[in-house]
Amino acid sequence: MLSNHFQNGVETVRHAWSRIPNSEESQFVDDAVGLVRKSDGSSVESLDYEVIENFAYREEQARRGKLYVSYLLVVKWLFALLIGIGTGLAAVFINLSVENFAGWKFSLTFSIIQKSYIAGFLLYALINLVLVFSSVYIVTQFAPAAAGSGIPEIKGYLNGVDIHGILLLRTLIGKIFGSIGSVGGGLALGKEGPLVHTGACIASLLGQGGSTKYHINSRWFQVFRSDRDRRDLVTCGCAAGVAAAFRAPVGGVLFALEEVTSWWRSQLMWRVFFTSAIVAVVVRTAMGWCKNGNCGHFGSGGFIIWDISDGQEDYSFAELLPMAIIGVIGGLLGALFNQLTLYISSWRRNHLHKKGSRVKIIEACLVSLLTSIISFCLPLLRECSPCPESDPTSGIECPRPPGMYGNYVNFFCSSDKEYNDLATIFFNTQDDAIRNLFSAKTIHEYSSQSLLTFLVMFYTLAVLTFGTAVPAGQFVPGIMIGSTYGRLVGMFVVKYYKKLNIEEGTYALLGAASFLGGSMRMTVSLCVIMVEITNNLKLLPLIMLVLLISKAVGDAFNEGLYEEQARLRGIPLLESRPKYEMRNMTAREACGSGRVISLPRVVKVSDVVSILRSNKHNGFPVIDHTRSGESLVIGLVLRSHLLVILQSKVDFQHSPLPSDPRGGDRSIRHDSHEFAKPVSSKGICIDDIHLSPDDLEMYIDLAPFLNPSPYIVPEDMSLTKVYNLFRQLGLRHLFVVPRPSRVLGLITRKDLMIEDTENVNTLELQSTSVRNRHHNKRPTTRNSDVERPLLNGLLVGSE
Amino acid sequence: MLSNHFQNGVETVRHAWSRIPNSEESQFVDDAVGLVRKSDGSSVESLDYEVIENFAYREEQARRGKLYVSYLLVVKWLFALLIGIGTGLAAVFINLSVENFAGWKFSLTFSIIQKSYIAGFLLYALINLVLVFSSVYIVTQFAPAAAGSGIPEIKGYLNGVDIHGILLLRTLIGKIFGSIGSVGGGLALGKEGPLVHTGACIASLLGQGGSTKYHINSRWFQVFRSDRDRRDLVTCGCAAGVAAAFRAPVGGVLFALEEVTSWWRSQLMWRVFFTSAIVAVVVRTAMGWCKNGNCGHFGSGGFIIWDISDGQEDYSFAELLPMAIIGVIGGLLGALFNQLTLYISSWRRNHLHKKGSRVKIIEACLVSLLTSIISFCLPLLRECSPCPESDPTSGIECPRPPGMYGNYVNFFCSSDKEYNDLATIFFNTQDDAIRNLFSAKTIHEYSSQSLLTFLVMFYTLAVLTFGTAVPAGQFVPGIMIGSTYGRLVGMFVVKYYKKLNIEEGTYALLGAASFLGGSMRMTVSLCVIMVEITNNLKLLPLIMLVLLISKAVGDAFNEGLYEEQARLRGIPLLESRPKYEMRNMTAREACGSGRVISLPRVVKVSDVVSILRSNKHNGFPVIDHTRSGESLVIGLVLRSHLLVILQSKVDFQHSPLPSDPRGGDRSIRHDSHEFAKPVSSKGICIDDIHLSPDDLEMYIDLAPFLNPSPYIVPEDMSLTKVYNLFRQLGLRHLFVVPRPSRVLGLITRKDLMIEDTENVNTLELQSTSVRNRHHNKRPTTRNSDVERPLLNGLLVGSE
Repeated sequence: MLSNHFQNGVETVRHAWSRIPNSEESQFVDDAVGLVRKSDGSSVESLDYEVIENFAYREEQARRGKLYVSYLLVVKWLFALLIGIGTGLAAVFINLSVENFAGWKFSLTFSIIQKSYIAGFLLYALINLVLVFSSVYIVTQFAPAAAGSGIPEIKGYLNGVDIHGILLLRTLIGKIFGSIGSVGGGLALGKEGPLVHTGACIASLLGQGGSTKYHINSRWFQVFRSDRDRRDLVTCGCAAGVAAAFRAPVGGVLFALEEVTSWWRSQLMWRVFFTSAIVAVVVRTAMGWCKNGNCGHFGSGGFIIWDISDGQEDYSFAELLPMAIIGVIGGLLGALFNQLTLYISSWRRNHLHKKGSRVKIIEACLVSLLTSIISFCLPLLRECSPCPESDPTSGIECPRPPGMYGNYVNFFCSSDKEYNDLATIFFNTQDDAIRNLFSAKTIHEYSSQSLLTFLVMFYTLAVLTFGTAVPAGQFVPGIMIGSTYGRLVGMFVVKYYKKLNIEEGTYALLGAASFLGGSMRMTVSLCVIMVEITNNLKLLPLIMLVLLISKAVGDAFNEGLYEEQARLRGIPLLESRPKYEMRNMTAREACGSGRVISLPRVVKVSDVVSILRSNKHNGFPVIDHTRSGESLVIGLVLRSHLLVILQSKVDFQHSPLPSDPRGGDRSIRHDSHEFAKPVSSKGICIDDIHLSPDDLEMYIDLAPFLNPSPYIVPEDMSLTKVYNLFRQLGLRHLFVVPRPSRVLGLITRKDLMIEDTENVNTLELQSTSVRNRHHNKRPTTRNSDVERPLLNGLLVGSE
Repeated sequence: MLSNHFQNGVETVRHAWSRIPNSEESQFVDDAVGLVRKSDGSSVESLDYEVIENFAYREEQARRGKLYVSYLLVVKWLFALLIGIGTGLAAVFINLSVENFAGWKFSLTFSIIQKSYIAGFLLYALINLVLVFSSVYIVTQFAPAAAGSGIPEIKGYLNGVDIHGILLLRTLIGKIFGSIGSVGGGLALGKEGPLVHTGACIASLLGQGGSTKYHINSRWFQVFRSDRDRRDLVTCGCAAGVAAAFRAPVGGVLFALEEVTSWWRSQLMWRVFFTSAIVAVVVRTAMGWCKNGNCGHFGSGGFIIWDISDGQEDYSFAELLPMAIIGVIGGLLGALFNQLTLYISSWRRNHLHKKGSRVKIIEACLVSLLTSIISFCLPLLRECSPCPESDPTSGIECPRPPGMYGNYVNFFCSSDKEYNDLATIFFNTQDDAIRNLFSAKTIHEYSSQSLLTFLVMFYTLAVLTFGTAVPAGQFVPGIMIGSTYGRLVGMFVVKYYKKLNIEEGTYALLGAASFLGGSMRMTVSLCVIMVEITNNLKLLPLIMLVLLISKAVGDAFNEGLYEEQARLRGIPLLESRPKYEMRNMTAREACGSGRVISLPRVVKVSDVVSILRSNKHNGFPVIDHTRSGESLVIGLVLRSHLLVILQSKVDFQHSPLPSDPRGGDRSIRHDSHEFAKPVSSKGICIDDIHLSPDDLEMYIDLAPFLNPSPYIVPEDMSLTKVYNLFRQLGLRHLFVVPRPSRVLGLITRKDLMIEDTENVNTLELQSTSVRNRHHNKRPTTRNSDVERPLLNGLLVGSE
């Protein structure tokens, strides 16, 4: 009877396979482990956040004592600490290198232009070119996954989609050195996004105990083997990255919470916050150490990046209108930015970057040259302005002394008492340019003409630079663009609202917030980051107002930058809210008309091989029959587990009958390590496994390897509810089953309130179930079931 | 055959009922609507966050157009705005009243003690007594649910348990006026916890469009009728309450996120943050308006409550040891506080408060008298100290001028140039006492003897006061206690680490954080609140360190204050993580041996009545038979819906056969309003419904009223997974069903990626299902199914 059923199964398989259309898949190189390799070489796989309660897992759970739980807790916190230290040090290293490269570049250029502007320009352009070339060379030759900001990929990872290669050691190294080159080389991009990716890489590498490929790993730390555990670590890493980038620990936590993760637990929050705080301590300590001049140009700005705590004290209702206008501009320009970058990066992916890495290198070098030309030559065309009356209390000198940072840059001016306002923002490091734009007590420093020129040119550069093969963040360019038009609006407000105490720098800050809001559509985390980087809590309501408007305006046109980019890269993000159409669809409709490929409990090896070869499914339902002949779904077996079984061969048996689960020696045949999913590697492939003809004639009893209770939904449940279940629990497979014939029990809140025995009296909630049973039942069930709790019932039932 | 089945059903019911033990239930007054009324009169009911997809709901969904969605969005944001304004105004009102009552009390007492200390004491004690009496009178006579902080109850509500009466208008009023009395009356409690409850009440009342009981409601705003929508509003209200209490908008959001809610969506976060910011704007505007002296004593402190931005600049590693000691002390004292308050409030509940409200009033008055005696007489016993050398730059005068706030209170001193350090903290409003404890540049202001005396006495008072029948928060007492021992440690550090630049006030802040951490076990939100109330971001890593230690120490002894109190009050909170024992239990074991009471699809009215009378279940599975005689679970019908059907009688029919779903006129018989759950009212009771003998002989077809697809789990799923499902989706009922016999389909990520048609090409994830089908299927299904999507298939199948 079993073989009969099996033949049916195989037929079903063949039938189903014949109905799967191949037309669209043909563009992909199918690598047969259930991945789809996309045309550009990267591949995407779903993660599985469900606990696979198979035999090996339960064995291991049973072996673990109380001590192991404590050990796990200690390791978790230790990892949080290490991620914090690692990310903090990486951020310090990147900052130190970038600021020293850039500082050295600018001071060298300034000293040469005293003699010749042409020689100065050539040197400036050459240094930039070398830095950008080193960055693009590292990325294209060594770590292709390190290009771009990495935030869409990390967001995808935490949503449940693994993009291979994003969390490797080589990606980490490429990201760190690549962003030093690209940011130091003066391109219109930032180092903040890459730092988030860096933090995630560090977390993931720590989680697997080092890089497997380079054999720098320790079994001691390999306690996090499921996607679920790794997710927590990567979340910590993300928050650490933001905390390090902006020196904003609270902002980091909120960024991870709001923008990146899709699942969240309040226990995790505290650990994430701890990591962020460690980052803050590390960065602060490093900066304190650098204060004495040990680190060259690094550490001059103080812990708060753009401190405007001496900004505008108060605001009046009359100012709300210009602020709302800033919001609208931010929404429009941000949405336009998203759209333009979408077009340009889609064009790059589909045309330019297909031609190989040489094209990518040339492209980046051209962009670098263009950037050098614009940022050097445009200020030359601008006439210098005379310095304003100096105010000794403000501590701002005009022009700034050579070799220092600050406002009022003297560049191509005829007199010593003049400054070039375009050079003040253009011919400067980005951090200093932003500091100058945000600066208070510098009313009328910039002419509207210069600001407009800068806005147009920098916006164009930012769009052009987006998508080149270098690590690139969009935060700093966004802040630059936003603060420019913010300051422009501020200048008009100063002109028309004469009596009020208005600081243009505060408007620049609001502009920055509005552009980021209009482009990235972040809300709470952006507010908090803006507050933390400027150390001015009083502006919070204004920042919120601006963000509300710019996000609403931007949402009217398109999606956020990260969502658009994720879609472009083929990362299927599941949003937190089901689509409206899903209300009218059922689970049955969603899973389509293709029939399911099921396996019987005891399956012939040759059939497993043919099924695995013939399709790319990652999970197969396992069906068995009871004594009375009824069929029964006994679980789900994963492709990756089948491959492990096929490779090890120890579970092959000659008999087509189920093996006795109480035989006992199965427990030593497999270690749960073998079933653990490797990180960022593609696992075994069916074509790598060589089986002799004798092997192919043998059988496998799948019962010990399957997940006995995947989540199920009845066929006519509305897709909205299915979506919620799938999304909230982070599933990979969900069985659609027929309506049940009877209800064995109802579970309500009280049934889940299992308290320690002495506290049972406090349970006062009504329920459908009987009250005393926990006392009576648990001790007995616990004793008998502790060994093989679920499989027990399962295996008995199917004998 | 149907009647046959029905008789079986009734027998099943009787059988099941006979097996439910009554022994433990007998202590409860059973009010027959599925609630358990506890011995103290309050009652608890589960909330249902699942969408009941019954006929009326689907009808309404189908009627709603695009316009309605926009309307809903506007209303949601409008409500967020209104909640913010309401809570902000409530907070301003409470603060204004408290500070004026207290300020008037102290200035009157100070003017009288110039002549006679005895008369001064009598006046002081009398004013306190009157204020406390008014508070306890309001609470006991008018709003019993307003006693205590309300945070455990709100936490329960957002976890899915409704405690009746906590969100009524009378509770709101009682809370506002009660906390004015209790805080103004000088008791050792705070107004912060009650403000959270106030915010939640305001949100809930707005959500139901006013109070139904007092007929101040508008149908226009009654768009939030499900528990799900109300949950969002109450979350906003909580955050608004914290934001108003501490003037900490970010802290408010994080408090709601970390401590109060159990579910969270990132869309909600932005709305919650908006509400918090509105609160900040309202409070700031009100304080700005009060600056000119319009509001008496209110508004003197500035927006930042305890600004210590001029505190300690930096810290050395040597200071980490005393800070760690503060953390340990905080953990120990906090855990002790939780344990003592648990004992005392359990004793109060079980013995004292059962004797009626007169005992409660006498108790509160006695506590008030005791507090007055201790806070007035202890400083009298203390010798005055000479004023320190005055530092003109610090702006601190010694002794402070009469009628002002500040350090160095001259109380019972012989000379004019002396001050009483105990009176500085004891004989003062709480806000000022804390400001004095946190104050920088006042080294050696307090003697360790005074601080110790204060610590012991205030700790005792805080424990004694906890649980009296007045609105009472634990934040401010916690800060007082913590800052006292923090300052003590700071004094020792100043003494032994002579060379360092140490401020005792900073240690006081850390002490406050440690005590709150040790008692409430909050983490991220507490950090952020401490930062926001002191406006000193630099101390964040230190606050975190102290909190980490104090929380870990506290966790070694007992649970957090709110969890302990929730358990004491019989609020069954579901933690976010399943218990360890659940791994070895199955769903079947959890729902026990009691058999399920099922209803047939067409049921006789008299049977419904007898079933509803004979048990207290809230949900009943509905079973039907297919043509081939197989039984089929067609859904879940709620008790409350059955009661609505019984009361309206319009759905009664003479025939015991299913009515034709295409008859058409069913749609007008019931409005979804009728099925909406009322807020904080107990709904209809089965005993209130009067049915004639003719009615009892009729039948009801339940098909249109049931929820056709409740979530199901197979019987041998491990309880851990069941718990995750139940908790994450906020369910109330979950069906335990037999293992399915076959799998109709597998749902994977790609099946849920329903994009707009033009974007389908970007879907690049492999899946078990067929690729093109969304194009082919959706347009057709959409047209035909839009009317009655799920019931359609259901009703046809069972005809």
